[in-house]
Amino acid sequence: MTTPSAGPFTGPFTGRTLDDLGRDLRAGRTTAAELTALALDAIATGGAELNAFVTVDAAGAAEAARRADEELAAGIDRGPLHGIPAGVKDLIMIAGMRVTMGSRHFASHVADADAACVARLRRAGAVVVGTTTTHEFAYGPTGDRSAGGAARNPWDPSRMTGGSSAGSGAAVAAGLVPLALGTDTGGSVRIPAALCGVAGFKPAYGAIPADGVFPLSRTLDHVGVLAATASCCLLAYDALADSPVPVDSVDSVDSVDSVGEVRVGWLEPDSLFPTDPRVAGTARSAAGPVAGEVRMAPEVLELFRETYLAVQSGETAAVHADRLAAAPGLFDPEALDRLRQAAELPAWRYLRAMEARQALEEHAEALFGPYDVLATPTVPILAPPIGARESEAGGERIQVRAALLGMTSPWNVLGRPALTVPAGLVDGLPVGLQLIARPGGEARLFAAARQVESGQDRGAGLRA
Amino acid sequence: MTTPSAGPFTGPFTGRTLDDLGRDLRAGRTTAAELTALALDAIATGGAELNAFVTVDAAGAAEAARRADEELAAGIDRGPLHGIPAGVKDLIMIAGMRVTMGSRHFASHVADADAACVARLRRAGAVVVGTTTTHEFAYGPTGDRSAGGAARNPWDPSRMTGGSSAGSGAAVAAGLVPLALGTDTGGSVRIPAALCGVAGFKPAYGAIPADGVFPLSRTLDHVGVLAATASCCLLAYDALADSPVPVDSVDSVDSVDSVGEVRVGWLEPDSLFPTDPRVAGTARSAAGPVAGEVRMAPEVLELFRETYLAVQSGETAAVHADRLAAAPGLFDPEALDRLRQAAELPAWRYLRAMEARQALEEHAEALFGPYDVLATPTVPILAPPIGARESEAGGERIQVRAALLGMTSPWNVLGRPALTVPAGLVDGLPVGLQLIARPGGEARLFAAARQVESGQDRGAGLRA
Repeated sequence: MTTPSAGPFTGPFTGRTLDDLGRDLRAGRTTAAELTALALDAIATGGAELNAFVTVDAAGAAEAARRADEELAAGIDRGPLHGIPAGVKDLIMIAGMRVTMGSRHFASHVADADAACVARLRRAGAVVVGTTTTHEFAYGPTGDRSAGGAARNPWDPSRMTGGSSAGSGAAVAAGLVPLALGTDTGGSVRIPAALCGVAGFKPAYGAIPADGVFPLSRTLDHVGVLAATASCCLLAYDALADSPVPVDSVDSVDSVDSVGEVRVGWLEPDSLFPTDPRVAGTARSAAGPVAGEVRMAPEVLELFRETYLAVQSGETAAVHADRLAAAPGLFDPEALDRLRQAAELPAWRYLRAMEARQALEEHAEALFGPYDVLATPTVPILAPPIGARESEAGGERIQVRAALLGMTSPWNVLGRPALTVPAGLVDGLPVGLQLIARPGGEARLFAAARQVESGQDRGAGLRA
Repeated sequence: MTTPSAGPFTGPFTGRTLDDLGRDLRAGRTTAAELTALALDAIATGGAELNAFVTVDAAGAAEAARRADEELAAGIDRGPLHGIPAGVKDLIMIAGMRVTMGSRHFASHVADADAACVARLRRAGAVVVGTTTTHEFAYGPTGDRSAGGAARNPWDPSRMTGGSSAGSGAAVAAGLVPLALGTDTGGSVRIPAALCGVAGFKPAYGAIPADGVFPLSRTLDHVGVLAATASCCLLAYDALADSPVPVDSVDSVDSVDSVGEVRVGWLEPDSLFPTDPRVAGTARSAAGPVAGEVRMAPEVLELFRETYLAVQSGETAAVHADRLAAAPGLFDPEALDRLRQAAELPAWRYLRAMEARQALEEHAEALFGPYDVLATPTVPILAPPIGARESEAGGERIQVRAALLGMTSPWNVLGRPALTVPAGLVDGLPVGLQLIARPGGEARLFAAARQVESGQDRGAGLRA
């Protein structure tokens, strides 16, 4: 198994963790200004072909970096994100910056205030370098339909990054920045993280406030983070969340195994979606020893699918009703077609779906059973070519959008914290392992992820 | 002006208040058993033609009355409702009793537990005598479509009671019981109270828990009370609510006038719905001196109407979707037609309507302005003949359902406490005066109602 710590495209932050960068910054081996200059240069040159960034704020980033350096020199240390360059998905508001939602409707929109998560990012000392490509209005898991064009996968630029936090996945995977913010309504952080070979964390619902984030579906939208490793995601999460997970509470987890403190169950991927067997095998290997295996019952899966679709359709149609009436031609045709269908969902189906979320909570509890963490592939297929909408997995014809969302969306319906970590490569393309926990189980979730990542280090000897 | 304390139909509780009955009980001049026997007899004999009750529990009521008498004799006094016979709308669950929702779908349904409000009613010592007619599934303000037939107005049995708490209005107005529970989604407590000439109180949203009440529209449904006077409603409310309004906090209100402690504004009824000028004049006289007059702006009214319709349609369709699919023929044709329309409401319109409730809160604040209480007729027309669906008011052709709901439904959209008190008679039919307050303003609301009722006493010399 190859460790996907670097794809064919490598940038200044390839193979660098936040810990690593923080040590260099504090030891005087680098400066925030230098890191920021490296990021800006990589975005403008080699990274440009990936279309990971939409708008870059070179002057603002340089200024923020200068302040971060001054503060460190003055003994003011804001913690693990201090001086770290970061990308922000192009539908999270950044005061004074162009934020387009990946849409022609907002081609020249300038945000008037920072989103809550951006304000927290700045307060933690991070340097916002620019906005990263989003699938149009975050309404799609492929990441290949955006007013500014498709984001491209650093492992093969002819392939999609996955989405909707497409540019965030590409930017971190290509080493353009060590950290990016995304949003995840049905998998939009985890899917691009998995297909691009980085880690991505969708926290429990509401754990990072969504104020100032352009909505897709308010009761499913989660703000999340993408970085090289789960440990990096944890550092970023702790800087952004209302209730951080102290790193030492993760450190204090003694054992992750079948009899230890964190019990991991393998969720059979074929019980969620037809899965490429090579993907399933790679994820299963990465998961290591597990305490048992579970399957989602078909009727529960069906209820998850119907519920997700109904909730998202109703809420998304409500967000876009005025634009749909006033300027339908500004939507990408695929989004327009989907929105028009979504606008027809009857209210009673939406309300029934909201009620079903209660019932699904009970089904999920039964599924989790004695396990603290469930493990399954993040995405059942490899990154498809840009524009592909049909593919094949496990011997079946599949719809690409449905496949991309197949393993991830149930955990949005329930608001459970879920993490993807790199699991290996198949045909030179990354595979992600998804780990899912109960709200409140974040320390165990990250302990399980650490176990997976350390297993890969032992296997490949590539990570420090 | 005639005081509508008694219609042409008079029963054992006509002209009796809860205070009055309580004094007699505690002085040994009567017993709960005697009051209950009077109620049961009146329901079975003279009151039968009103179709106010659906199911009567003579044995259970006699037993509860016996216990109430034993307790009083033993010095256990549960307060103002102790020993008081009460009717309960036929969609509020009563353990072991047939509760039909006024529907053929539930013709033989027996409730397995008391609704929260029924449990509280019993805990307060009241004697549940039976279920009162509801418009089918509470889905209509006319009160004349129910599986067991229309309730009839005690002032003229050829006319509707209004609804949906039709039997509760008729039963209290006819003096069959001194107290009844109702529910109010768009006016369903206040409308029958007004058309039948009694008092009715729709508390703030959630103030009396709705657990165990068959839903019509969950975010609009309120549990309320009907009784002879506002003071009686206050006593009942205090026994049922999570946060009672101490009677002495009402007593402590010094003055209700243009410069006093409670400022009452007159809400021009024509700004809400075309109003019979005799109804408007009677209500305006009953309101007495007011501090000023306000009008609802047409665009605000339109937003209230659209919002109410969308919220109620979506939620009601969700409640009945399975029955609509499985056994549409068991619905009354009018309900079926309305449900089928409701089922077509798009989810995005429902969600927009839920958002509009926030905006309407601001509009209502602007409307209330300096006033603590707004006063306006409860219903803009007199009780129409049973079955009527079109009528005339203020020189305009009107839809009866829209007219009945026209003054009351905005306060369900906002969840504001609203009370109707008898205002007088026109053509021998009762007119109600509606008083509306902000949540938290209940003491001022009841003080204003007391002022109105004492004004009528002075005018007519009929009330103690």
